[in-house]
Amino acid sequence: MKMADFLDKVHEECGVFGIYSNERSFLAPKVYYGLYALQHRGQESCGIAVNDSGVFRYYKDTGLVSEVFTNDIIGSLGQSQMAVGHVRYGTTGSSDRANAQPIVINHNINKMATVHNGNLTNAVQLREQLEKSGAIFQTTSDTEVISFVVSHALLESEDSEKAVLSALGKLDGAYSLIFMFRDKLVAARDRHGYRPLCYGKCPDGSFVIASETCALDAVDASFVRDILPGEMVVFDSDGVRSDKSFCFTAKEAMCIFEYIYFARPDSKIDGYSVHNARLRAGEFLAKEHPADADVVVGVPDSGIDAAIGYSRYSGIPYGIGFIKNKYIGRTFISPGQKSREDKVRIKLNPVFQTVSGKRVVLVDDSIVRGTTSARIVKLLKDAGALEVHVRITAPPFMHPCYYGTDIDSRENLIACKHTVDEIRDIIGADSLGFLNTGFLSRLPSDDMAHGYCTACFTGVYDTDIPLVRGKDRFES
Amino acid sequence: MKMADFLDKVHEECGVFGIYSNERSFLAPKVYYGLYALQHRGQESCGIAVNDSGVFRYYKDTGLVSEVFTNDIIGSLGQSQMAVGHVRYGTTGSSDRANAQPIVINHNINKMATVHNGNLTNAVQLREQLEKSGAIFQTTSDTEVISFVVSHALLESEDSEKAVLSALGKLDGAYSLIFMFRDKLVAARDRHGYRPLCYGKCPDGSFVIASETCALDAVDASFVRDILPGEMVVFDSDGVRSDKSFCFTAKEAMCIFEYIYFARPDSKIDGYSVHNARLRAGEFLAKEHPADADVVVGVPDSGIDAAIGYSRYSGIPYGIGFIKNKYIGRTFISPGQKSREDKVRIKLNPVFQTVSGKRVVLVDDSIVRGTTSARIVKLLKDAGALEVHVRITAPPFMHPCYYGTDIDSRENLIACKHTVDEIRDIIGADSLGFLNTGFLSRLPSDDMAHGYCTACFTGVYDTDIPLVRGKDRFES
Amino acid sequence: MKMADFLDKVHEECGVFGIYSNERSFLAPKVYYGLYALQHRGQESCGIAVNDSGVFRYYKDTGLVSEVFTNDIIGSLGQSQMAVGHVRYGTTGSSDRANAQPIVINHNINKMATVHNGNLTNAVQLREQLEKSGAIFQTTSDTEVISFVVSHALLESEDSEKAVLSALGKLDGAYSLIFMFRDKLVAARDRHGYRPLCYGKCPDGSFVIASETCALDAVDASFVRDILPGEMVVFDSDGVRSDKSFCFTAKEAMCIFEYIYFARPDSKIDGYSVHNARLRAGEFLAKEHPADADVVVGVPDSGIDAAIGYSRYSGIPYGIGFIKNKYIGRTFISPGQKSREDKVRIKLNPVFQTVSGKRVVLVDDSIVRGTTSARIVKLLKDAGALEVHVRITAPPFMHPCYYGTDIDSRENLIACKHTVDEIRDIIGADSLGFLNTGFLSRLPSDDMAHGYCTACFTGVYDTDIPLVRGKDRFES
Amino acid sequence: MKMADFLDKVHEECGVFGIYSNERSFLAPKVYYGLYALQHRGQESCGIAVNDSGVFRYYKDTGLVSEVFTNDIIGSLGQSQMAVGHVRYGTTGSSDRANAQPIVINHNINKMATVHNGNLTNAVQLREQLEKSGAIFQTTSDTEVISFVVSHALLESEDSEKAVLSALGKLDGAYSLIFMFRDKLVAARDRHGYRPLCYGKCPDGSFVIASETCALDAVDASFVRDILPGEMVVFDSDGVRSDKSFCFTAKEAMCIFEYIYFARPDSKIDGYSVHNARLRAGEFLAKEHPADADVVVGVPDSGIDAAIGYSRYSGIPYGIGFIKNKYIGRTFISPGQKSREDKVRIKLNPVFQTVSGKRVVLVDDSIVRGTTSARIVKLLKDAGALEVHVRITAPPFMHPCYYGTDIDSRENLIACKHTVDEIRDIIGADSLGFLNTGFLSRLPSDDMAHGYCTACFTGVYDTDIPLVRGKDRFES
Repeated sequence: MKMADFLDKVHEECGVFGIYSNERSFLAPKVYYGLYALQHRGQESCGIAVNDSGVFRYYKDTGLVSEVFTNDIIGSLGQSQMAVGHVRYGTTGSSDRANAQPIVINHNINKMATVHNGNLTNAVQLREQLEKSGAIFQTTSDTEVISFVVSHALLESEDSEKAVLSALGKLDGAYSLIFMFRDKLVAARDRHGYRPLCYGKCPDGSFVIASETCALDAVDASFVRDILPGEMVVFDSDGVRSDKSFCFTAKEAMCIFEYIYFARPDSKIDGYSVHNARLRAGEFLAKEHPADADVVVGVPDSGIDAAIGYSRYSGIPYGIGFIKNKYIGRTFISPGQKSREDKVRIKLNPVFQTVSGKRVVLVDDSIVRGTTSARIVKLLKDAGALEVHVRITAPPFMHPCYYGTDIDSRENLIACKHTVDEIRDIIGADSLGFLNTGFLSRLPSDDMAHGYCTACFTGVYDTDIPLVRGKDRFES
Repeated sequence: MKMADFLDKVHEECGVFGIYSNERSFLAPKVYYGLYALQHRGQESCGIAVNDSGVFRYYKDTGLVSEVFTNDIIGSLGQSQMAVGHVRYGTTGSSDRANAQPIVINHNINKMATVHNGNLTNAVQLREQLEKSGAIFQTTSDTEVISFVVSHALLESEDSEKAVLSALGKLDGAYSLIFMFRDKLVAARDRHGYRPLCYGKCPDGSFVIASETCALDAVDASFVRDILPGEMVVFDSDGVRSDKSFCFTAKEAMCIFEYIYFARPDSKIDGYSVHNARLRAGEFLAKEHPADADVVVGVPDSGIDAAIGYSRYSGIPYGIGFIKNKYIGRTFISPGQKSREDKVRIKLNPVFQTVSGKRVVLVDDSIVRGTTSARIVKLLKDAGALEVHVRITAPPFMHPCYYGTDIDSRENLIACKHTVDEIRDIIGADSLGFLNTGFLSRLPSDDMAHGYCTACFTGVYDTDIPLVRGKDRFES
Repeated sequence: MKMADFLDKVHEECGVFGIYSNERSFLAPKVYYGLYALQHRGQESCGIAVNDSGVFRYYKDTGLVSEVFTNDIIGSLGQSQMAVGHVRYGTTGSSDRANAQPIVINHNINKMATVHNGNLTNAVQLREQLEKSGAIFQTTSDTEVISFVVSHALLESEDSEKAVLSALGKLDGAYSLIFMFRDKLVAARDRHGYRPLCYGKCPDGSFVIASETCALDAVDASFVRDILPGEMVVFDSDGVRSDKSFCFTAKEAMCIFEYIYFARPDSKIDGYSVHNARLRAGEFLAKEHPADADVVVGVPDSGIDAAIGYSRYSGIPYGIGFIKNKYIGRTFISPGQKSREDKVRIKLNPVFQTVSGKRVVLVDDSIVRGTTSARIVKLLKDAGALEVHVRITAPPFMHPCYYGTDIDSRENLIACKHTVDEIRDIIGADSLGFLNTGFLSRLPSDDMAHGYCTACFTGVYDTDIPLVRGKDRFES
Repeated sequence: MKMADFLDKVHEECGVFGIYSNERSFLAPKVYYGLYALQHRGQESCGIAVNDSGVFRYYKDTGLVSEVFTNDIIGSLGQSQMAVGHVRYGTTGSSDRANAQPIVINHNINKMATVHNGNLTNAVQLREQLEKSGAIFQTTSDTEVISFVVSHALLESEDSEKAVLSALGKLDGAYSLIFMFRDKLVAARDRHGYRPLCYGKCPDGSFVIASETCALDAVDASFVRDILPGEMVVFDSDGVRSDKSFCFTAKEAMCIFEYIYFARPDSKIDGYSVHNARLRAGEFLAKEHPADADVVVGVPDSGIDAAIGYSRYSGIPYGIGFIKNKYIGRTFISPGQKSREDKVRIKLNPVFQTVSGKRVVLVDDSIVRGTTSARIVKLLKDAGALEVHVRITAPPFMHPCYYGTDIDSRENLIACKHTVDEIRDIIGADSLGFLNTGFLSRLPSDDMAHGYCTACFTGVYDTDIPLVRGKDRFES
């Protein structure tokens, strides 16, 4: 059990990174730094594939980037002209390793490495079609489906760009993809733009593609632009070119929870600062759920920004409510411990001075099962907080997500079983306020220039939903 | 090279932890959690020793607590009545492992495990005396000297408490110690009280001793009290008893830099909140070094509290200036990278939204060589900050520390070679203000009830200084 | 570089093992012991897959069985009704891991694990056909081709036995295979019977399939019989049944070098003792290449048996000529060492007492490049041997092998470039005798009841040879 | 549990190696190869210390040489002028690591590394004396006692040679030692010469000291001579010089079991070939315990040489009776296995062809508990042996060893509880013959020029025996 799991959170399932350089050089270290910056998007496994004049080498395993990629392994990847990398959140078990990405097809007449963030909604149908035409799937992963759709298209055209475009016409659901072929990198984002994807340029002229801008920063690349929903961008020896055939063919539906929790605050997505969106979430909460209190504190890390926003709007001073132990990793779990909730304090210790004798506004990003929230409220009260007013920067989770996160309609979503008042009582708060769904689309900006997916809160989906649902989505 | 080293900081050299339980039980997991909470005091090596009815077992190695102590190793330590643990910061090199603590004397007629935070100032003299009387030292570590002083005293009395008391009469300098004997734990703090040490009680009646209160919290122990400068506290089957023979025999001189940087903000030391001391540092800075600015940001993690204090006093809004990558550990260093300063950004990325177009007050805890500060100022300016006003929550380091940190009079202390104005120019700041030394003793509280060591800033030492100075202090 | 590589040998490419038990139990440990017994057939990577009521779990990695399969990993495989395992010799490089077996298809409607020893001669053609009908290959391995041929056949029939039979009709070349399906194990051997395969029964009624009988012994299974060339044997809840449709449809061509070098001497293959075949090789050599000598020694391990045979026939006493260091594994190679030939002595040290002042007959199994033989002769002469008469239990390697070993027509086969007399001079021997090709088929027995492949010595192949030859065979 | 432990053997406790080179160079790889050749003398832990112009670096840990010393660690030891190394057999448990050698005193005014093979008989007395004069022991190991005796002598003279000589006058029992000081290596062997020690010279002029000549061979050193019982040999910039003050002051008592089992057959000890001694043991057995049989087989590895001797004398053909699995290491033990005796077959498989239908003479080196012998006899009978005549190349173990092996008077020595006839029945043999004690001293040679220790067989000790006996000898 990972320490990270002590804190009851929903999880993003992936982060992608790619680099194209005309010159042969040591690219694996750059992918390393890029993945290191994207580590918050997935901590279970990671991988890097390089393309050295058509020779593909790769390494992937379970573990953090800093654990998997030792100097020796980075060294063994050698120099190359292109590289892609991936971090993944996944379910536990020995087969995790088999699901690590990149998915590399290393056949001598068909070389291709694919990294993917998202979730297809028509994977079952595509798989059936491909199987009918002779394909043999070795796993149940969407990424293998995507690889095969492209590979099949390649059989017809031998033109990898056409093959990707053809695939984009077939894949439904959420996907931010980077394909590495023999002679080019191709990045693509689904028509709804569920997951972020952007690219930048390094001082040496290399191009870098990443899930978030913070990964561009990590390799000193300057941001060029977000890849548009439906866009395909090609990076090869001729430079960069874009195909927008699929742009503007569907309702834009960027995952709003990227702004609320998944993304790093120092990233910008589709032009809007994640940090700013969280400040605004705090302000909206202060407006709609004011509290008569002495201090506003946030649950680290993601509640901090919104707490500052709440403080600014309400005028209640901001304070540091908790210290989070920053030494993450594999952690011994005492055989005698009663439950993992008891161990929240190992990661999160309240600052007595901030909360003792105070009426506290506690800002967090979400409540999934409620157990962690209850424990955190208790920690504050034990530290002398007179009242604890919980403010959540999202509406309650009510519906499953089919687009690449682990928000599921399972019985452990507290809001599916309890009213807000009941939740308040369960977690022991003096008051409880969730963000109004009406504010969701205004989090990034008031200009309302973009559309967002809010399906996990509202149940309104912008695609067909998958034939096979629930747990099965995560099988294999 | 560790990632942590990217950020140019001074280092605490140790954290100690001990637990005494009348009942035989699995204590190693508790020591694990205690050390995990103290990990900020030393990341190079760690160790745990247990005493199971007189059988001593131990394990120590280089690495983080979560890396060294796998489930198998924790399991192999088994059940015991007592245990001690240690985290250590140390110089690099293969002999690091030999210097890991606890120092265990596992001889059949003399069993003893010692953990130590601090630095003796008369180690050379003590070693010479002991050698004259037949002792053979296997290392140059102070902790071996301490073990031997106690062991020699034991030869005369066979009473471990008398032996420790006798040792306290001989040891000069800084030491917070826990000794584990066959039948008891003995904690002791030097007469000046340079390093913190406190104890608490678990719900099951076990006693816990730790460098900081945050480690008591981690094992759900309630704080009982700080151990006094010069005090020896014994934990055995008769309960707890104190010897204060050496109390009040010397000027109290608690390391003020514990409050400024070393300790965790959620800890209290000698009754004063570390978090509060940092808030106050920010307030003092705001008073003495005001700035005409739009936002106050702190350098994570230790600059954050003071930045809030600066904001509160000045009325300038507080903002999140940087996101720190929380995935720590072994990290690949690209062979081609120009310098480690270039890689600050991998750990620390500015939040554009907070600083762009703003006049920024940047609060940090110290400037050692100045290279990291210069890089951080540049990151802010590159992100669009119009002005950067650097405020440091300590005076400039000017003098070596002989009490257990690595502040040395080496040529790399920028303040030894440059004026404040020169430093400001070197780091590229628009203004620069250090904390006035006059405020140092008021950081924890205005009541001035305690005395503090400020020698690294003022050059005023409360003990004789060691015969052998400079680099040699850190040899072996 | 592995120590094993110091000794210049040809390599078998695989060993396979499978177990079918009606009762759910801990089968992975049994596979472990089976693979441990087959470790001589491949030391580069290994893997185990288990089938627990249709849930497939597997683990594979580079390394020896005892290195890869820690208690934790064996434990994580849990209980199951069936399991298969594999050891593999392979070329070095990071992609080795990708080529480890079993090849597991873990798709929810098509679960199948395949282990394979051998080499197809029509892999290229099969791959092309399958690609035309829509298959997408992810590697260039023969085993993936085999999996796909069976999978495609499954699409038509849904009957795994028919699918395997259909595959056997299409696959040319050498293959000893075990397939694990949802509800059965299926073992199959190519029509020529190039590679060994047999099965046995455990005291608890489980069935065990293995490359060699020594692996049956390791799990206390009693030998039932060899699987016939062309035979398919099915193990499921109905017991064991055989299909012989493809038996006796081709010339039997068991690899004679299994008897000479690859197999363990305690194994029997097709009813004949490997140990006995080597004794006979020594006898044939003594008959055809007598020597006027004082002692016969063998190069450990495989030359020992033949040396005893030579001694028995010739009447020259047998002696222990060398001690082989038995501590195998990863070994540091001094950066300053002149060449790996210089390091033969680290593995092999002559016994002075046996050879000093003697005329020595030295029996070895083969000469590949000649460098090791030269070094060994020199070791004996340095130890005082007056004469060294080298006797080789095989004819010279002259032709590539297409059936699962790494004997290649590359420039490093000394016999392709030099006459026997030249080789004698190159290796510094006083005389040199190779086994006459005429004796090859009589090694296992005089009854001549079986046919053998001797193509690497004679150039007579019993199948078409592959379209793509030489180095490319080992690509991927 | 180690695989090696399956086979019920007595254990040597150590091997030592040292190298002195005038030129600074990479000596750690040479020590590595030397220890690799001595690995049979101890498989539990190993260590290397180097002396680079007075800077001592070392690394030691539990595990085989090839496991502990990765390229990185060898590299970190760097270049040096001198180095020593050690392999150790030890009891299991977490404190093993603390007992690994070299014992390094790395104090700045007293640097010294000690490696030791043997066991003191007056360790308790020496320890008490040293403790009275102020020494503080950190472990109960003899090697620490030796280090301290030398260190104390150094206080008086500052002349390391005098200090070693002084120590030799005080140490009783068995010891072959190498001391590394700042400016020289000093080798010494106890007055009885219980354990072997020799030195040789490399082509580059470096001197090499080792427990056995096979380690000289491994680094291409030519044997110079054995170090005499009681001799001290110094290696420094002046070359080699010897002190024989203690030579010929005690009865020579070289451990005869080194010839029978401990040493490698390719080594010579005190001028006599180990291989030859084993051949002779077989001959003596054939003379005194003839058998009417068809084949003679040996239990690998150490029974092989004697089986050949038995065959030569008796005229009964020698055959290969067993194949031993050569892949050693950490091995999974099935939770369900009945007993470790059942697993003998995993390491040792009979060769059916050799023994089926035959009357077999089985030659082994010893019987400790009898369980393994019983299992081996059963394996042969199950393989069809008509009769099994067991011949042991040593007399029965009846008395504890105080000189560095783990032969103890514990209840598990079968010969302490049973007559030879009973043992024969217990192990299921048709006849059983042990070597006559009268032949022991004639094993190495008929010239009887040397004296041997045979105490474990005869109870005749050539020194006082230790005050504390039995299990306590092996404590901590």
